[in-house]
This record gives sequence, C-alpha cells and structure tokens, in this order.
Amino acid sequence: MSKIAVMGYGTVGSGVVEVLDMNKDLIASNAGEEVEVKYILDLREFPGDPFEDKIVHDVDLIMEDPEVSVVVETMGGTGAAYTFVKRALENGKSVCTSNKNLIAAFGSELLAIAREKNVRLLFEAAVGGGIPIIRSVNEALTADKIDCVTGILNGTCNYILTKMAREGAEFDAALKEAQENGFAEADPASDIEGHDSCRKIAIMASLISGKNVDFENIYTEGIDKITSEDFKYADSLGMKIKLFSECIYEDGKLKAITAPFIIDRDHPLYGIDGVINAVCVHGNAVGDLVFQGAGAGKLPTASAVTADIVDAVKNKEASHKLLWDATQLKPEDAKKYSYRYFIRLNEADKEKAADIFKDCEFVKAAGVDSEIGAFTSEITQEEFETAASSLELISFIRLSDTK
Amino acid sequence: MSKIAVMGYGTVGSGVVEVLDMNKDLIASNAGEEVEVKYILDLREFPGDPFEDKIVHDVDLIMEDPEVSVVVETMGGTGAAYTFVKRALENGKSVCTSNKNLIAAFGSELLAIAREKNVRLLFEAAVGGGIPIIRSVNEALTADKIDCVTGILNGTCNYILTKMAREGAEFDAALKEAQENGFAEADPASDIEGHDSCRKIAIMASLISGKNVDFENIYTEGIDKITSEDFKYADSLGMKIKLFSECIYEDGKLKAITAPFIIDRDHPLYGIDGVINAVCVHGNAVGDLVFQGAGAGKLPTASAVTADIVDAVKNKEASHKLLWDATQLKPEDAKKYSYRYFIRLNEADKEKAADIFKDCEFVKAAGVDSEIGAFTSEITQEEFETAASSLELISFIRLSDTK
Repeated sequence: MSKIAVMGYGTVGSGVVEVLDMNKDLIASNAGEEVEVKYILDLREFPGDPFEDKIVHDVDLIMEDPEVSVVVETMGGTGAAYTFVKRALENGKSVCTSNKNLIAAFGSELLAIAREKNVRLLFEAAVGGGIPIIRSVNEALTADKIDCVTGILNGTCNYILTKMAREGAEFDAALKEAQENGFAEADPASDIEGHDSCRKIAIMASLISGKNVDFENIYTEGIDKITSEDFKYADSLGMKIKLFSECIYEDGKLKAITAPFIIDRDHPLYGIDGVINAVCVHGNAVGDLVFQGAGAGKLPTASAVTADIVDAVKNKEASHKLLWDATQLKPEDAKKYSYRYFIRLNEADKEKAADIFKDCEFVKAAGVDSEIGAFTSEITQEEFETAASSLELISFIRLSDTK
Repeated sequence: MSKIAVMGYGTVGSGVVEVLDMNKDLIASNAGEEVEVKYILDLREFPGDPFEDKIVHDVDLIMEDPEVSVVVETMGGTGAAYTFVKRALENGKSVCTSNKNLIAAFGSELLAIAREKNVRLLFEAAVGGGIPIIRSVNEALTADKIDCVTGILNGTCNYILTKMAREGAEFDAALKEAQENGFAEADPASDIEGHDSCRKIAIMASLISGKNVDFENIYTEGIDKITSEDFKYADSLGMKIKLFSECIYEDGKLKAITAPFIIDRDHPLYGIDGVINAVCVHGNAVGDLVFQGAGAGKLPTASAVTADIVDAVKNKEASHKLLWDATQLKPEDAKKYSYRYFIRLNEADKEKAADIFKDCEFVKAAGVDSEIGAFTSEITQEEFETAASSLELISFIRLSDTK
C-alpha cells in the first residue's frame, strides 16, 4: 500500500482523487500495490465532500509524514507550488505535477533535486493534458533521435480557429462563444497570445535536447490577428490555419516558435479540429507520429497525473537518465528561420510584390474582392520583414510545409 | 554491453540492425548499456553486406549461446518463427518480435512461457507498425479502464480508400496503383479482405481484456465491395469511408469487428488519410486518444522493434502483470451488434424502405442518378439482414457514430 498526498483540490486535484477512486483495482494492479490518498491539502473547506476527512491545511503534515511516498501538486502557479514541490523532493518524496508553468520555469532545478534524492519528478499532464506525450518520448521512442516536435497545444485556440474555419466567424465572436462554452477563460490572454503553448513547447524542447530551454527565449505570436478573410483564402485553397508550437533540434542547434501557420491537407496535423490537442513527433527512424486527445479537462488531465502516480509507485527510484540538466540552450534567433509566407495585399501592389518576392504564387479567394493572396518563396523572417516593409500587406501567415 | 541476435534479415530485420547502428549512442544511453548484434540468422548469404560477418545459418548457435540475452524475431509466419521464439524463451532469452500472426495465434502460450522463465516477450511492432500503441496502452494509460479500441490498421486499405475518395477512382484502379507504388502486395487478399487488420484487433482485444481472443472468432469484412458511387455519397455528405477494426470491452463482454464504416468529420479518425495507420483508444478517464503514424515500412517498424530491445535490455525481468492469459474470450455474436446503416437503393424502393427501416433519413448524391441513399435507425446486424432481404439494396455500409 502506497500513501499519497494531493496538494490543491481544484479541478485537476479533485479529478485525480476521483480517478484513483473510480479505477482503484485496476490502478492497484498496474502499480503493483494499492494507492491510498492520505491527505488533501487546500486552503478551503469542502463540507459534504466524500473525501472531506482527508482535507488538511498544514503542508507540514504532508512533508513530515514518512508514510507519504508520493505527493501530487495540482495547485498551479510558481509560488507555493514551487516551494512545496522542492520541499517534497528534498524530503525524499516523489512528485507528480500537472503544472506546466512550474516545470517550464524550474524544471531543471527540480529534476536535479529528484535525481539527487533518488525519487521521481513526473509531469505528464503538463504538456497536452491527457495525451501521454512525455512518456511516449521518454519511454516508447527510445530507438529514435527526435529532431522535431510540432504541437497544437492549446485547445482554446484550436476551438476558436475551428469555429472561424467552419462557420466563417470573426475572431471576437468565436472567442466569445468559446468563453460561453467554457473553452476559454474570462481572461484569455495567456491562451490566445500563445504564452501557454510557448511554455509547453519549451518543455518539449528541453526534453528532446536534454538541456534547459527558457520559454522566454521562444519567439511567440498569438492568433488574435487572424480574420475571417484569412479563412476565406484557406478555404479556397483547401487549407487550414492552426496555432503551432514547434521545436527543431538538429546538430546541437534549436529552433523554437509559437505562431499561426497555414497548412495543407497532407500535413499530419490537418485533421486536428476543435478543442483537442495534438503533437506531431518526428524521429529519424519512425518518421512522423501524431498523438491527439483532450489537452485539458478534469478527468483527462487527472488521467495523466494518475498514470504518473502509478509510475512513481511502481518505479520508486530516479531513472538512470536525467531528463534535462541546467545547461542553457538558447534557440537560434527567430529572424533567421526560413519559411514560405502566405501574404494578402492590395491588387494594385501585385507587380511590386512579384518583384520583391521572387517566384510569388498568386491566388484569389471566393468572396474576397479588391485584394489578392500570394505564397512567397522561402525566405528568412528578417528578409520577409524587410521586403514586407515596402508593401502595405493586409496580413501574413507562415506556411508549414509537409515536405 | 548486451548481446542480441536477429532472426530473419529481410526488410524489418535489416531495418533493426540499421537503426541499432544509426542510433547506437542514443540507444546505449536509453538502455543503460551498449547493445551489440552478435548474430543475424538467415537462410541466405549476404555478400558485401556491412554486417555479413554476423550472418549465421544455424539457430543452435543463438539458442545455446549464454551471452545472447535478447532475440529479435523478424522472420514472419507461424512455423519456424513459433519454434524459435518458444525455444529462445525457454532458454531464458527475452524476445522482441514484429510478427502479428505469431502473437495473434500463440500470444497467450508464449507470454506464459516468458512469465515462467522471468524474461520479456515484446511485440510493439505487431500492431500499427511504428506507432507505440502497445506500450501506450500497457505503460502510459495505466490509470484508465480501456473500453474501446478503434483502428485504421492496414495502410494498404487506407491508401486505396483515400485514392478512391480524392480521385473518384474505382477500387480495382486504386488497388493497381497501390501495387505499382509499393503500397500493396502482389497478392493483396490478406489486406483488402480485412484479415491483416483482424489479427491486429485480436491482439488489442486480448490486451485490453487480459484474455485470449482468437482472431478467427472476429467478424471480418474487407473493402473490395466499395465502389466509386459509395464515395460520391460520402463526398456529398462530407463523410469518409474507412476500414475500421474495433473492439469494445464492457462488463466482461467483448464486441469485435473488422469492416468498412462511413464516418463524419467529428469522428476522431476522420483526418487519417493515405498509407498511415491510426488507433483510437477510449479510456474511462482520458476519453478518446488517437495515435497515428507509419503502420509499415522498414525503418518505422524497426523503430518499434528496437524500442522493444531497449526495453528488454533495461528491464530484464518479466513484468508483475501478465498481459493476457489462456482463458478464451469469445466475442459476442456479430449478428447482435447494433449500428445505423447507410444503404443505397433504387428510387422505386423508397417507400418500401421507409416502411421497413423506421426513421430512415434519405439523401441524394451529386452525380448518382436513379437511386437514393438512406441512413437507417440503429438496428442489429440480424435485423438489418432480415429487413434488407426484402429489398434489393445496391450496397450498405455501417455508420460509426461519434456520439
């Protein structure tokens, strides 16, 4: 019998307690022993809750109890969560957390402590919610050099973009509907500006490189400038617009970006619509693999955290492999990344554009008059910005090639 | 340093040797020690091959060599492969195999021997090629009760169906093109009649139930009766036609089928086009997860086999959990499975059909005259066959609902 503590009894934390209860026997069988929640730490009281008797308010109870071997952190944030996780690891307890902000900010430090104390630090839910992407990369794709990870890592953005694509909605209307349906926060900035996705791809970049990638060094654009006209072009072209987070790691060099991309139907992520998340992983033997599923939500996220608990109970000692160390890996300057761009411009600027962007491929969209679209040849972001400055572009978006 | 032997130096076997060589350092780091190929067993000679010096023709060399701890079986078939795998396990060697026929036919017997001898029997490549679906179900989704697996498990069929959908091709022409492009065998029966997919879903059904599911008990239809007219309806309806292999395991009862299904764009497998495979797994906490990737091919399949080698080297002892035992689990009679059906019939039979299939929903397809399509209400296969016998249906196909 393993005894665990859950810190933070909000949506995810209560989901973990629910899954542990709902699938009790199966979890015991997979973990090799029963798993019992001994404490639930929260500032609030939960009168009438079936697990009311487990609620405690004093973190010392958990930290000082030698019976507690695994601590679950589902509080969020990087304040108390950081202090408590660090203390739990230092006290020789394994930690399972869903907290992407914590791992993106303090992953290498916490991993080193876990290693030193010979316990586990697991965070499957931090990227892609219920999708077992971290375990797949670490434990399934062990024969492959992973050189590229491309993800649709924010369900709010994908929901909004899908609404816009399918219904011709404007961004503001689609965002409002997402909020009404509970798919977007009242303050959606972290989602729609790409910061949430950026933290997740920073974690994936750290994983595949083995070095610490600071999310603040990753070039990030959101989806708030995408309009219904952009989707008219995409629709006419049989293409889609998605918010991608991508990292490419080759020869010790890293490229990382979060930005909207236009993709055609041969792209592995073309079919990923609605509130779901998906991650495309490229290995040098396996090629492209796509993992898709619920990127958020109570039970899916709890499923991933609980799988971490099973793992921590079954394999109590630190892996021989440190996931990533404190060595900083700074992505190459985004100005040097090359893409083909899709641009929209006034019809009057067509010749000028053809002149500036060699090998331009012009397109028209049904229902969009007095302007024209074009795919540029492949150029760096720096070259693109210089070229674009002499034209009044209506909008631009990067093209993700499927090669 | 672990020494291994590869039995069968064909496409997959030579791929395994190639991946072990190409990603040598990374594999050593993941396995915790270096992995060296000591023998390659094949009937043929390979003059000039870079691994020519490893080729042997006598299986006894491998079986009697105590230095060989892991044996890879990439011979195929259930003759010598069965004898050799059994003997390797009995001699205390772990086995990694890509052989779905072997596992579908002898899985429970071989797993029991591996358990008894405290070694590993791994077969990640047997289902979905390079997709790490078996490891995900066994080791990542440990907090979920898996109640349904739906797969597009045959790349040949999916390639043909995608060709038919996109180009309006007839089945025979699409098959011919698949053969010309190396995506279909000269004798395509096992693929297009559904037998290959059926074996793979039998393995998945055994995995999620923990009991032995005989592939011969699984109701199986192929794709060879699908026509370009079927696709005209699908296209008009914004739907797709896919060969699904599905198993549903609830309350100790199993339903399992391989057959073409018509699906709408909200289905998790709607976006799976071309030669790739995909598996949708439903867990009671995580919901639907989809894993997609190359279902065949030299390096993708070798990637999965090599990940098994890494696992067998790293974790030498049998898991505490037997994957499935010899208890037979017979699927429920397919005649009792309920679906909505999409049917095509002569326009003259419309009223009769409306009478027989209550709540029929009639549809027309652009370019298909003098007939009509309809979705029936949900009925069992048995009821459907009775009802259909009084009409001259042009064709029928099951609808896979996304609920």
